[in-house]
Amino acid sequence: MSTGRLEAFSDAVIAIAITVMVLELPRPEGVTWSALHDDLPVLLAYVLSFAYLGIYWNNHHHMLQATDRVTGGILWANLHLLFWLSLIPFTTSWLGENHLAAVPAAAYGIVLLAAALAYYLLQTLIVRDQGEGSLVRTAVGRDLKGKLSPVLYLVGIGLSYVSATLGVLVYAAAALIWLVPDRRIERTVQHRADGDRAVS
Amino acid sequence: MSTGRLEAFSDAVIAIAITVMVLELPRPEGVTWSALHDDLPVLLAYVLSFAYLGIYWNNHHHMLQATDRVTGGILWANLHLLFWLSLIPFTTSWLGENHLAAVPAAAYGIVLLAAALAYYLLQTLIVRDQGEGSLVRTAVGRDLKGKLSPVLYLVGIGLSYVSATLGVLVYAAAALIWLVPDRRIERTVQHRADGDRAVS
Amino acid sequence: MSTGRLEAFSDAVIAIAITVMVLELPRPEGVTWSALHDDLPVLLAYVLSFAYLGIYWNNHHHMLQATDRVTGGILWANLHLLFWLSLIPFTTSWLGENHLAAVPAAAYGIVLLAAALAYYLLQTLIVRDQGEGSLVRTAVGRDLKGKLSPVLYLVGIGLSYVSATLGVLVYAAAALIWLVPDRRIERTVQHRADGDRAVS
Amino acid sequence: MSTGRLEAFSDAVIAIAITVMVLELPRPEGVTWSALHDDLPVLLAYVLSFAYLGIYWNNHHHMLQATDRVTGGILWANLHLLFWLSLIPFTTSWLGENHLAAVPAAAYGIVLLAAALAYYLLQTLIVRDQGEGSLVRTAVGRDLKGKLSPVLYLVGIGLSYVSATLGVLVYAAAALIWLVPDRRIERTVQHRADGDRAVS
Repeated sequence: MSTGRLEAFSDAVIAIAITVMVLELPRPEGVTWSALHDDLPVLLAYVLSFAYLGIYWNNHHHMLQATDRVTGGILWANLHLLFWLSLIPFTTSWLGENHLAAVPAAAYGIVLLAAALAYYLLQTLIVRDQGEGSLVRTAVGRDLKGKLSPVLYLVGIGLSYVSATLGVLVYAAAALIWLVPDRRIERTVQHRADGDRAVS
Repeated sequence: MSTGRLEAFSDAVIAIAITVMVLELPRPEGVTWSALHDDLPVLLAYVLSFAYLGIYWNNHHHMLQATDRVTGGILWANLHLLFWLSLIPFTTSWLGENHLAAVPAAAYGIVLLAAALAYYLLQTLIVRDQGEGSLVRTAVGRDLKGKLSPVLYLVGIGLSYVSATLGVLVYAAAALIWLVPDRRIERTVQHRADGDRAVS
Repeated sequence: MSTGRLEAFSDAVIAIAITVMVLELPRPEGVTWSALHDDLPVLLAYVLSFAYLGIYWNNHHHMLQATDRVTGGILWANLHLLFWLSLIPFTTSWLGENHLAAVPAAAYGIVLLAAALAYYLLQTLIVRDQGEGSLVRTAVGRDLKGKLSPVLYLVGIGLSYVSATLGVLVYAAAALIWLVPDRRIERTVQHRADGDRAVS
Repeated sequence: MSTGRLEAFSDAVIAIAITVMVLELPRPEGVTWSALHDDLPVLLAYVLSFAYLGIYWNNHHHMLQATDRVTGGILWANLHLLFWLSLIPFTTSWLGENHLAAVPAAAYGIVLLAAALAYYLLQTLIVRDQGEGSLVRTAVGRDLKGKLSPVLYLVGIGLSYVSATLGVLVYAAAALIWLVPDRRIERTVQHRADGDRAVS
C-alpha cells in the first residue's frame, strides 16, 4: 500500500480540524471593539491551535515523503494520531471560553502530550518498518525536538495549576521550537537526490 | 470510470464525519475535572465512533484497491454506504448526551447495522461486476467478519433494552474484531504481485 | 488549465455540504422513539438533500470526465453552481425544522431551481468551449432530463402553497428521474473508446 | 518538495471555509418570506465572502501552477494566508448578524486587508525563490490589482465608521475587480508553451 491515500486522508482530517475551529469561536456580543476584546483569549487559543495543527501537518508531510510503504500498524498509528489532533478544537474552545482557567489549560496540554506521543509512536513504527539504514532513520537523527516537546508539555501542565497563562506560554514556546520546519529530512532527501545524480 | 474519484469523495466524506463529530461534543460546564467527567459518556461514544469510521475507511480503501472499475450501480451503492456513515455523528451525540439510554443505544446500533448491510451490498456489487475469478472475489473469501458483525449489532440492539451499557459493549466488541486490518486482501494482492513477477 | 483541480475542489465542497448537513439535524429531545419521530420531517428532508447532492456530484463527475480543459468562464460558472449547492443545507434545515411549511418548501425549490440553471449554464459554457463535434456535445444530446427538471421545480414551488408535502413530493420525483446515472455520456465515452480501438 | 500537497491542503481549507459558512447562517425565525428577509444582511455578507474565497482559490491556483517548488518559507507563508482566510467565516457572521454595524464592518475589512498582505508576502517569497526571469515573476508583472486592493480595503475600513453599508460596498467593488481571473499568468503560461512548441 502506497502512502498516497494515507496522506490524502490525514490532510483532509487536519484541514477540517484547522478550519472548523473557527466555528467554535463565540460571536462577540455587541458591535464594539471591547466586545471583540472579550473574545481575545479564545482568539489567542485559536492562533496557538492553528499553529500546532499547521506544525503537525508540516512534519507529518515531511515524514511521509521519506516513507515508501504503509503497513497495517502504521495505518492504525496514524489514525491514533489523528484522533488526538481531532480533539484539539475541543480543548481549544474549552480553554478559550473560560479565560485561561487552570483545568482547561492542563487538559489542553494533555491532548498536546498525547498527540506528541502518538506522533512518536507513528515515527517509531515507520522507522522500524523502513530499517536502520533508511531515509527516515537518517532524517530523524537524534530527534531532539521530538524528545524535548513532551517534557515542555509536562512542565506546562504542571504550571497551569500555578497560572494558566504561564502554562499556555510554555505550550506557545514549544510551538515556536517546531515552527522551524524539519530541515533534517529536507536536507537528507536533498543529499540522497544529489548522490543519485552523482552516481548516474 | 476509474476508482480514483470515488475513493477521493469517500475519503472526504469519512474524514469530515470523523472530524466534525468533535464539534458535537458539548463543552464541559465549568472548569473542573468533574465537569469533564460529566462529559465522559459523550467522549467514550466519540472514541467508539471514531474507531468505526476509521475501520470503514480502512476496509473501504482495501476493497477499492482490488477493484478495477466503477459502474453506475457501484457508485450509488457507495453513496448509500456514505449516507449511513454520515448518520453516525448524529446517533453518537444522541447516545452520548443521554448517558447511554436504551433507545439512543438501539438507534446507534441500527445505524451500524444499516452501514454494515450497505457495505455488504457494495461488496456484492463489486464482486459481481469483477467476476468469480477476480482479485476482490478471492480476497473477500468466506467473509466471516462481514457475516458476524450484523449478528453482533442485532444482539447489541436487543441488549440495549436490558442495559444500554451492555449494548454499547457489544458494539465495541464488534469494532475490536475489525480493528485487525483486512489482511486477506493485502495477502491476495501480494500473491498476485508475486505471481506477476514470477511470470515476467 | 486541466480539469483536475476543479474536480478536486468541487468534490470537496459537495462532500462537505453533504456531510455537515447532519450537524444541522436537531438532536431528539428525549430518549424515546417518539422523540426521534418528531425529527422525522428533518430526517426526510436530509435524505432528499443527500440524494440531490449525490446526483449533482455524479453528473458533475460525468460531465467533467468528457471535458478537456477549463477556461476562466467555466471556472466561475462552476463556483456559481457550488454557491447554490452550498445553500442546500440551509434550506434543508429551514424546511425540516418547520414540519414542511409552505414558504420553506418553496425556498427549498427555488434553490434547487437556481442550482439546475447554474448547472445548465456550466454545461452550456463547456459545450461552447469544446465545440459542436465534441464528446460533451454528443453526450449531452437533447438533454431531456435537464430541461424537464426546472419545470418540475417550478411546479413544486407553486404546489408548496397548496400543500408543502405535495411540493416536496414533486422535488422527490424530480430526484428519482436523476437517480439513473447519465448513461448517455458513459455510452458516448465507451463508443469513442471502441472507435479509437477499431482505428488503431 | 513539489507543490502538489500544498495545493491539496489549501484547496481543502478554502473549500471547508466556503462551505461551513452556511452553517453559521441563522435559521429564519418563522415560516414567512419576511423571516427570510430579516436574514438578508447575513445572506449578502455570505455572498460577498463566498466570492472572496472563490477569488483567493482561483488566484492561488494560478500562482501555484507557475511555481516549481516549495521551500519552508513558502509553506509557512501559505499557512499564514490560510489563517486569515479561515477567519472570514467569523467576521462574516459577526457582520451579518448585526445588520451591518460599524465595528464589524471594519473588522471584516481588516481581515480582508490581512489576507491581502499575506497573499502579497506569499507571492513575494515565491518570486524571490523562483528568480527574476521566472514564469511567476513575468506573470505577476506590475501587479496593479494586488496593489490597489489593500488601498480599497483601507478606504472601506475608514468609511465603515461613516456608514457600514458604504464600507461593505467598497469591499464588494474590490471583489469585482478580482472577479476577472488572472489572465496575465494564463497568458504567460500560454506564451511559454507556444515558445516551447516553436523551439521543439
